[in-house]
Amino acid sequence: MNRNLGIAVIGAGYWGPNLVRNFGGSPGWDLRTVCDLDLDRARKVAGPHVAVTDSVERVLDDPDIDAVAIATPARTHRGLALDALRAGKHVLVEKPLADSVAGGRAMVDLAEREGLVLMTDHTYCYTPAVQKMRDLVVSGELGQVHFVDSVRINLGLIQPDIDVLWDLAPHDLAILDFVLPGGLPTAGIGATGADPIGAGRACVGHLTLPLPDDGLAHVHVNWLSPTKIRQMVIGGSRRTLVWDDLNPQQRLSVFDRGVDLARTSVAGSDRAASTVSYRLGDTWSPALPEREALGSMVGEFAAAIREGRQALTDGRSGLRVLEVLEQASRRLAEQAVPVGPPPVPRQATERVLEVSR
Amino acid sequence: MNRNLGIAVIGAGYWGPNLVRNFGGSPGWDLRTVCDLDLDRARKVAGPHVAVTDSVERVLDDPDIDAVAIATPARTHRGLALDALRAGKHVLVEKPLADSVAGGRAMVDLAEREGLVLMTDHTYCYTPAVQKMRDLVVSGELGQVHFVDSVRINLGLIQPDIDVLWDLAPHDLAILDFVLPGGLPTAGIGATGADPIGAGRACVGHLTLPLPDDGLAHVHVNWLSPTKIRQMVIGGSRRTLVWDDLNPQQRLSVFDRGVDLARTSVAGSDRAASTVSYRLGDTWSPALPEREALGSMVGEFAAAIREGRQALTDGRSGLRVLEVLEQASRRLAEQAVPVGPPPVPRQATERVLEVSR
Amino acid sequence: MNRNLGIAVIGAGYWGPNLVRNFGGSPGWDLRTVCDLDLDRARKVAGPHVAVTDSVERVLDDPDIDAVAIATPARTHRGLALDALRAGKHVLVEKPLADSVAGGRAMVDLAEREGLVLMTDHTYCYTPAVQKMRDLVVSGELGQVHFVDSVRINLGLIQPDIDVLWDLAPHDLAILDFVLPGGLPTAGIGATGADPIGAGRACVGHLTLPLPDDGLAHVHVNWLSPTKIRQMVIGGSRRTLVWDDLNPQQRLSVFDRGVDLARTSVAGSDRAASTVSYRLGDTWSPALPEREALGSMVGEFAAAIREGRQALTDGRSGLRVLEVLEQASRRLAEQAVPVGPPPVPRQATERVLEVSR
Amino acid sequence: MNRNLGIAVIGAGYWGPNLVRNFGGSPGWDLRTVCDLDLDRARKVAGPHVAVTDSVERVLDDPDIDAVAIATPARTHRGLALDALRAGKHVLVEKPLADSVAGGRAMVDLAEREGLVLMTDHTYCYTPAVQKMRDLVVSGELGQVHFVDSVRINLGLIQPDIDVLWDLAPHDLAILDFVLPGGLPTAGIGATGADPIGAGRACVGHLTLPLPDDGLAHVHVNWLSPTKIRQMVIGGSRRTLVWDDLNPQQRLSVFDRGVDLARTSVAGSDRAASTVSYRLGDTWSPALPEREALGSMVGEFAAAIREGRQALTDGRSGLRVLEVLEQASRRLAEQAVPVGPPPVPRQATERVLEVSR
Repeated sequence: MNRNLGIAVIGAGYWGPNLVRNFGGSPGWDLRTVCDLDLDRARKVAGPHVAVTDSVERVLDDPDIDAVAIATPARTHRGLALDALRAGKHVLVEKPLADSVAGGRAMVDLAEREGLVLMTDHTYCYTPAVQKMRDLVVSGELGQVHFVDSVRINLGLIQPDIDVLWDLAPHDLAILDFVLPGGLPTAGIGATGADPIGAGRACVGHLTLPLPDDGLAHVHVNWLSPTKIRQMVIGGSRRTLVWDDLNPQQRLSVFDRGVDLARTSVAGSDRAASTVSYRLGDTWSPALPEREALGSMVGEFAAAIREGRQALTDGRSGLRVLEVLEQASRRLAEQAVPVGPPPVPRQATERVLEVSR
Repeated sequence: MNRNLGIAVIGAGYWGPNLVRNFGGSPGWDLRTVCDLDLDRARKVAGPHVAVTDSVERVLDDPDIDAVAIATPARTHRGLALDALRAGKHVLVEKPLADSVAGGRAMVDLAEREGLVLMTDHTYCYTPAVQKMRDLVVSGELGQVHFVDSVRINLGLIQPDIDVLWDLAPHDLAILDFVLPGGLPTAGIGATGADPIGAGRACVGHLTLPLPDDGLAHVHVNWLSPTKIRQMVIGGSRRTLVWDDLNPQQRLSVFDRGVDLARTSVAGSDRAASTVSYRLGDTWSPALPEREALGSMVGEFAAAIREGRQALTDGRSGLRVLEVLEQASRRLAEQAVPVGPPPVPRQATERVLEVSR
Repeated sequence: MNRNLGIAVIGAGYWGPNLVRNFGGSPGWDLRTVCDLDLDRARKVAGPHVAVTDSVERVLDDPDIDAVAIATPARTHRGLALDALRAGKHVLVEKPLADSVAGGRAMVDLAEREGLVLMTDHTYCYTPAVQKMRDLVVSGELGQVHFVDSVRINLGLIQPDIDVLWDLAPHDLAILDFVLPGGLPTAGIGATGADPIGAGRACVGHLTLPLPDDGLAHVHVNWLSPTKIRQMVIGGSRRTLVWDDLNPQQRLSVFDRGVDLARTSVAGSDRAASTVSYRLGDTWSPALPEREALGSMVGEFAAAIREGRQALTDGRSGLRVLEVLEQASRRLAEQAVPVGPPPVPRQATERVLEVSR
Repeated sequence: MNRNLGIAVIGAGYWGPNLVRNFGGSPGWDLRTVCDLDLDRARKVAGPHVAVTDSVERVLDDPDIDAVAIATPARTHRGLALDALRAGKHVLVEKPLADSVAGGRAMVDLAEREGLVLMTDHTYCYTPAVQKMRDLVVSGELGQVHFVDSVRINLGLIQPDIDVLWDLAPHDLAILDFVLPGGLPTAGIGATGADPIGAGRACVGHLTLPLPDDGLAHVHVNWLSPTKIRQMVIGGSRRTLVWDDLNPQQRLSVFDRGVDLARTSVAGSDRAASTVSYRLGDTWSPALPEREALGSMVGEFAAAIREGRQALTDGRSGLRVLEVLEQASRRLAEQAVPVGPPPVPRQATERVLEVSR
């Protein structure tokens, strides 16, 4: 297969233009069509050289289109993706994969039956920093992962339909799924949250995920923090990594510092004692290439299709994220974190805030 | 009562010398005796002008001694304090108040029956930063407390007998008890932890405490972090405060930034909608006086005795801290966080670490 | 004059597109023409609704054009500006105003003779942070300015034709001219520099400017620093301001900290002694509006024309910056900082660097 | 020589107690005498086991005393040191070596004639961070030193008798002397300063020192800054080092980032062009041992005596620092930075400030 792959982008709203720009500029792809119910918006995003349509059927019927990228509201992902898979198209879906585990599972099952690529657009996983994090974990540089502490807080836009866990935690969970050797743990999820301002949904959230061999991951998301933090610490048995996404001068730091524990037998006894020692070694901050994450992501989508393999962030990874979020929602419901009518966002202040983010 | 109060310090180990120095230098106190089973140690700490003894009885029999300060291991607090109270002495106890809620409650009850002051040495509460934090909450400057996020992590000494929650969280809990209008919440405590290195006790811990009116406090303590953070965020309905204890140049910041929600009635409907707006105001960092916390603490002990009132950090505050810790331990036990034989600390590396803290 | 002002942008290279975008989007301006010798480039920048030309004469002959914005290489500013002024057009010039004091002075003189607005595009002066800095100085909030310390360093592109002082210091000098009550001091300039890598021009530079009443301003610019700093401290008799342009969370801080000196007469003597005292007050970080600087700048250009007054950053301010730079170059020449053939920039690595800035 | 060396400390004021403590605790030294005109002060500092005297003669006559450490006011260093050297004692002098170049030179000359060790107590040079900096320069890890930028500013105590350059810059200069391969450059020193508050001496100072091969060092000292910075950047041809003395978590960083310039011949021409390229490599932060600088310093004093060699920070290094300071004072005098009657420090506020430093 020497020709480029044909792609259509469905949905020209918030995220679609980014996909259009990256598929349009990628050497392996021919961007054929932009599809949106609002044809004017589609035209504006598509530019002069790309076809537009408001008909998904026409897209799915087009034999020159090998794959579709879905950037529509989450509740429509399932229907669109199933239709596209039935039409024999490979599918890329903006995160979250679907709005429920059931929906996501149906998509994953169908894609596997049809032998098609289903990929979740976990964009963060294609940033140079997160790619490096994965390398460091996979290569054993960090050793066994002991704990993860992920913080993603700022004065955020209160979303009209989802809580802070569904809004922000998918980023952290997708990254965890990407970097942890066994992928995202989905059993034994703990969660708590609060809605102290009466927004009708949790504005502060804490997630705990048990890791293999007695490790623990914790995710803190918060819409009410006056300061903005995006940081993840991955503590390993050999080294510990700190990712500070808002520090362009030192985004990743690898600390050769930690606690070591050696089991020793106690003389004249069958008891085993442990000896604690402390490593206080160097810190190292690897240089990271400058590369747009979305460009790498669309490249991976093409490579997965050509090589007939799962994408790095495949449908199953999107599904694991949904499984954790659904369990978290159940934990919150058990604690009766209040759910009420959605607030009406005031547009002007939103725009101010958007700029200041 | 114009004369100074007479004080004895019991225990000349780790914390005792600090108490001796501060009682010795305080205008309202006469330091009369230092008591330790190891008389040499007592002498070294007491200096040439203060009596020493290895007999608690002699201390309690001394009519010139109005109060005792107990700086012995936690498991001995209960017995010593009850004896002292029975002897009519006011009592200051190093934190934690006791090693169990039952012990702490016995102490509180006896002190109240006898009309004596029982005070917990929650030293942090007497730092200028925490005093200012209390002022800001109590004066209503922050408004209603919506959330608290407290982080106390570093490459810490694995304690031989207690887990990371009992080692580090008492600081956070004592501060919360001090600054929150209703004191520390003790119901509905959530906790999780992990012992990824096999130390036989949790080395990573997370605590959640429900606050009144749908608020939430979270405490993260960790012995395995390569970086050291001591930070507390108190998010209020009017302003949000950030305490960064390791930033001497800007220890406290008060942000006039936040999310406001106004309920409005929807025209022609009996539904109520909410309007979200965002405050993006100034930040203010109050100057803090330079003052040794222990000096203020021994002053408060004297004042409480003279004025016949409860101390700011009284026995009940120490008891609330124990109640939270015991609940947390139960949560961890339910999750089977492993408990095993204590490690044997290697002295040399400990000393290195101590210096580097 | 109720109609909008007509503007032409001359030069569609690096900076021109920003001017086109802002004049095109400003309510007070009609963008009529984009002029560039490369008509294709002009067309691309102008978009479908704006005329393009490669003839400056045609621009200057057009009666619907009230003003021109010049964004061409510095050595062409003088000729273009003088022609435009002679044609009765108001003129905005990208910084630096000209490539020599003589050139700048000719422009200023002609504009004043013709009664036309000549404005220098000192964009930084229209950022919310610098506007606030000016307010704080002008209102007396800082008191008398005692010292200024400005640092602008990073791993910078070695410019092919100018040294680091001419490349980076114009920003600092323009800001100083804008915020200091008497404008930029131009007498007694000290400068030193170094070309340690043999680039043929200074890559490290230090400027000192005496301020009124024994104050001192210092500017440090550096192309060789591995870290990026853009910071200015303005120390006043009442308060001190720190501007950290790379800290979006706290760009401006105002410290009520400083040294006060009171002169007192010495009893029984005609000597006067001084008493030193220290203020250790609060720090305050004002919220800054989000606003594009270039938008404010084109608004000021329109307002100056309509009100028949000098612009805030007028030709004279651009001229003062040139006067300081020329003196600095003389100081460097006296110290024989080597000047040689310009290096040939390697395009690929430049692009990498550009992204990483 | 197997026995310990005998030492006397002359001067029990501000710095003397630190010397007493370190000589007293050092395995190679026997602390024999503390000498101070104020015998009470001497006794308090000496403790019960060390002799005290108010007579320098007695110290110099004591055959068990091999060396003296002088911690008296700078103007007395010359006389005391010359007497001690004449009496055959090795001499350690608190910085500055003397209050003038002439004084320092007399001391250096006599020590060399007598074959005795004369050492300057440049304490900073014995900190683990500065030792590592020296290693990195000496080993060639940084390559050729291109530039140095040293900043030492804070809200400082206005000294009653010396200006900010003499107060703070000796630290920077001593460090430069220690780490630069050729020692401190002493020719072509530039300096400027200001006394904006009328303190009668410069409160803000800038020093420039030409480095070999077109490099440049700059030192900025300031008593009026509301923020405290102690930072030194050493830019090399291979790597650049940043020392941030107030960041205990990452005191030293080594950046593999920089600008490289390769000279290439231009084809068909006898001109040589240069090609600029940029390195954007990793950052590395070496772990530093925890070690008291003064302990290492007294160890070096003993080693130099035993091995009959110059100390690392010998008299000549102290002399070079004086040479730079005297030249700087001349530069300031040429610029008529005002010099007037010394201010009278107000004790109470000073103490507050001392604590807050």
